[in-house]
Amino acid sequence: MTNREIPYKIYLSEQELPKKWYNVRADMKNKPAPLRNPGTLQPMTLEELSGVFCRELALQELNDTDPYIDIPEEIQSFYKMYRPSPLVRAYCLEEKLGTPAHIFYKFEGNNTSGSHKLNSAIAQAYYAKRQGLKGVTTETGAGQWGTALSMACSYFGLDCKVFMVKVSYEQKPFRREVMRTFGASVTPSPSPTTRVGREILEKFPGTTGSLGCAISEAVEAAVTTEGYRYVLGSVLSQVLLHQSVIGLETKTALDKYGVKPDVIIGCAGGGSNLGGLIAPFVGEMLRGEADYQIIAVEPASCPSMTRGKYVYDFCDTGMVCPMAKMYTLGSSFIPTPNHAGGLRYHGMSSIVSQLYHDGYLTARAVEQTEVFKAAEEFCRVEGILPAPESSHAIRVAIDEALKCKETGEAKNIVFGLTGTGFFDMTAYEKFNDGLMSDYIPTDAEIEKSLSRLPKVDL
Amino acid sequence: MTNREIPYKIYLSEQELPKKWYNVRADMKNKPAPLRNPGTLQPMTLEELSGVFCRELALQELNDTDPYIDIPEEIQSFYKMYRPSPLVRAYCLEEKLGTPAHIFYKFEGNNTSGSHKLNSAIAQAYYAKRQGLKGVTTETGAGQWGTALSMACSYFGLDCKVFMVKVSYEQKPFRREVMRTFGASVTPSPSPTTRVGREILEKFPGTTGSLGCAISEAVEAAVTTEGYRYVLGSVLSQVLLHQSVIGLETKTALDKYGVKPDVIIGCAGGGSNLGGLIAPFVGEMLRGEADYQIIAVEPASCPSMTRGKYVYDFCDTGMVCPMAKMYTLGSSFIPTPNHAGGLRYHGMSSIVSQLYHDGYLTARAVEQTEVFKAAEEFCRVEGILPAPESSHAIRVAIDEALKCKETGEAKNIVFGLTGTGFFDMTAYEKFNDGLMSDYIPTDAEIEKSLSRLPKVDL
Repeated sequence: MTNREIPYKIYLSEQELPKKWYNVRADMKNKPAPLRNPGTLQPMTLEELSGVFCRELALQELNDTDPYIDIPEEIQSFYKMYRPSPLVRAYCLEEKLGTPAHIFYKFEGNNTSGSHKLNSAIAQAYYAKRQGLKGVTTETGAGQWGTALSMACSYFGLDCKVFMVKVSYEQKPFRREVMRTFGASVTPSPSPTTRVGREILEKFPGTTGSLGCAISEAVEAAVTTEGYRYVLGSVLSQVLLHQSVIGLETKTALDKYGVKPDVIIGCAGGGSNLGGLIAPFVGEMLRGEADYQIIAVEPASCPSMTRGKYVYDFCDTGMVCPMAKMYTLGSSFIPTPNHAGGLRYHGMSSIVSQLYHDGYLTARAVEQTEVFKAAEEFCRVEGILPAPESSHAIRVAIDEALKCKETGEAKNIVFGLTGTGFFDMTAYEKFNDGLMSDYIPTDAEIEKSLSRLPKVDL
Repeated sequence: MTNREIPYKIYLSEQELPKKWYNVRADMKNKPAPLRNPGTLQPMTLEELSGVFCRELALQELNDTDPYIDIPEEIQSFYKMYRPSPLVRAYCLEEKLGTPAHIFYKFEGNNTSGSHKLNSAIAQAYYAKRQGLKGVTTETGAGQWGTALSMACSYFGLDCKVFMVKVSYEQKPFRREVMRTFGASVTPSPSPTTRVGREILEKFPGTTGSLGCAISEAVEAAVTTEGYRYVLGSVLSQVLLHQSVIGLETKTALDKYGVKPDVIIGCAGGGSNLGGLIAPFVGEMLRGEADYQIIAVEPASCPSMTRGKYVYDFCDTGMVCPMAKMYTLGSSFIPTPNHAGGLRYHGMSSIVSQLYHDGYLTARAVEQTEVFKAAEEFCRVEGILPAPESSHAIRVAIDEALKCKETGEAKNIVFGLTGTGFFDMTAYEKFNDGLMSDYIPTDAEIEKSLSRLPKVDL
């Protein structure tokens, strides 16, 4: 097949959109370890999970046997408003690099939330609505997830309470206003509206907040308010299930043109995009039907897979959430302040962690200056301003394509372009002004946060 | 045809993309009046225009006879990176309004520049490159056009000098950084780098700049620098020619599903989006083949069509550009400072002006608070955060759909959604906080700026 037979952008028709999510856990021989109650250390039961999450989502969280789960009609309808997302053949980037490789990217940024997060937000909002809830609570850092959730909630007429890390609330007022425009209430965290918030404010009056604290506040607000539940944008198995639409669409689009990927690359923070993108491909590997090289890319300043430990850890600093077995840097790990992009979660989704542990994927850590160089090179020829998160994948895709240039191999490289960088221009400005620097945590720093792991042996 | 046979989004295939632009002037019996030299008052010649614009664009500016002009291969390739833009059936908005009307919108915001401006930017950059120029200069206010041009120039490796109105340069640093990321140099205007800039700085040391002044600086920089030409993002006939891709795609998409629009609505600042959207439809009207109701929507605070005069006027405050016959409020007209959206140009494209004068379209002025209400209502169900400019069209589309609800008519309403509002969150914040107000200029204010029209009778 000559290059030109593949269009710049492959759009599936509405008929070709996935009607079921793919649940990769069903095909995993080594299942991801269960979430555990931090008090009893026992696996979380459906009843326990249903106190925090909607019941249907709790069921999905526990379901590691059904390979396919129907996407409800209402969610399919919403997906049609912004999906299929295009699978783009990066002809211009290939030409610029002079590589024989064929580069494809699945672009999830063409929706107002600006990222793939909307795929799970709409599912979580739908189940909350169907359960007759009044609203949901969540936390957001830079605001991608909060934006996606506020869009989803406004669509279903659901109340949406977002706890936004105070420093972001103040320094990213535009994200905050997008959420408010969609009708969400946005509270800077820590706030005096929760017990945990008041405690932190008393202890550290000048604090600018952290994601861990915002999670604790959002969970508290959910469990103490009648008709509310807590929702989360990454890490959880239910989220990876919803995000499988990314991989399913990608696979259908590639199959249409007879393209078999050699390398699949995704950025990895909590693992939602990576897990979704690779799901059907890993499924084939798990069933012994095919083989792919899968690369998870993480920031060198927050290297949970490449330098973390595979153990049970707390999911939040307040330690109110269930514990998860994952590659982790320790729940007290906070990336250096000069870290500009996202992907700053201390752990990695249990599914991705288990797959990594079992050798189905490799991980690579990259430094942010190199990441922004890749972003700049990419946007100038492909015309999309990528989010810093997504640019981690771009960096490695370019590196792999340049290797092909040396070896002469015409590999098919597929990567996930998770979102746009319109709300990250402060980081771009730093890069444009030559003021961006890199920082790799020392072994001692990582040891220190790992020393605060829960004192259990599971 | 039942509703559900029409998908949420109609995407044309690459094969269906326009290969020629449509030049509506060829079908106009009353041609738009020519640009005139402000010194001699004679129509601008090809030679005169070629001193400011690239030769091929000067030719296009003068061409009012050829109905179709080939889109060069290189531009078609670039278009494929972000086009076709989707024609969206607004099922959710229809349901929310409870209207029997069928609402469609052509969404031009799914590219990094965030608007339709890229359609002409890439054409102008291409012709500059083909002529062997080193670079181009331009002005930008809020930054949509400057962003689009910087993307286009980076694609062709062309230098791009943007004069950005100083107040925007300082208050919209994110737009500025997008341009810089694409390699453009961005200078706050007025600047000491031009004669006209120095003069203005001397006379008004504290000035925050104006679009008219930035135009004058950009033109001066172009004509005094070897290998540079000036480019403009709206108003000109060449720009409307390039923007005809919007209308051509829209018509092809509607034709595929046998939909004949009853009402076509576009926001109108300089006229580039409106002119492009309506081109093929007006063409049918001009040739007596069909009839449509076309509505141009402008801000009540900058009402060039509904309250301006149809006369020759200066295109810039520095009066260095050719004069154009257009509906104008006078080149010294500046919208009230509380005006939040764009669409702040004092005049209207000669093509749109002539069509309006001849009764092919009507115009409607709307107030910004109502515009933002429409934007909010739209985004909460359709999931796209619209630019304030685009929201003018949304306002009138909703109004027309509500009229259908009263009359029971199932009209087909098509409007242009020109772009996204990610860089307009300051205006949204004002609206969200209930602090947005309206201002309609008094007759005396408009009389005053109209009293400064050029003293010629043409």
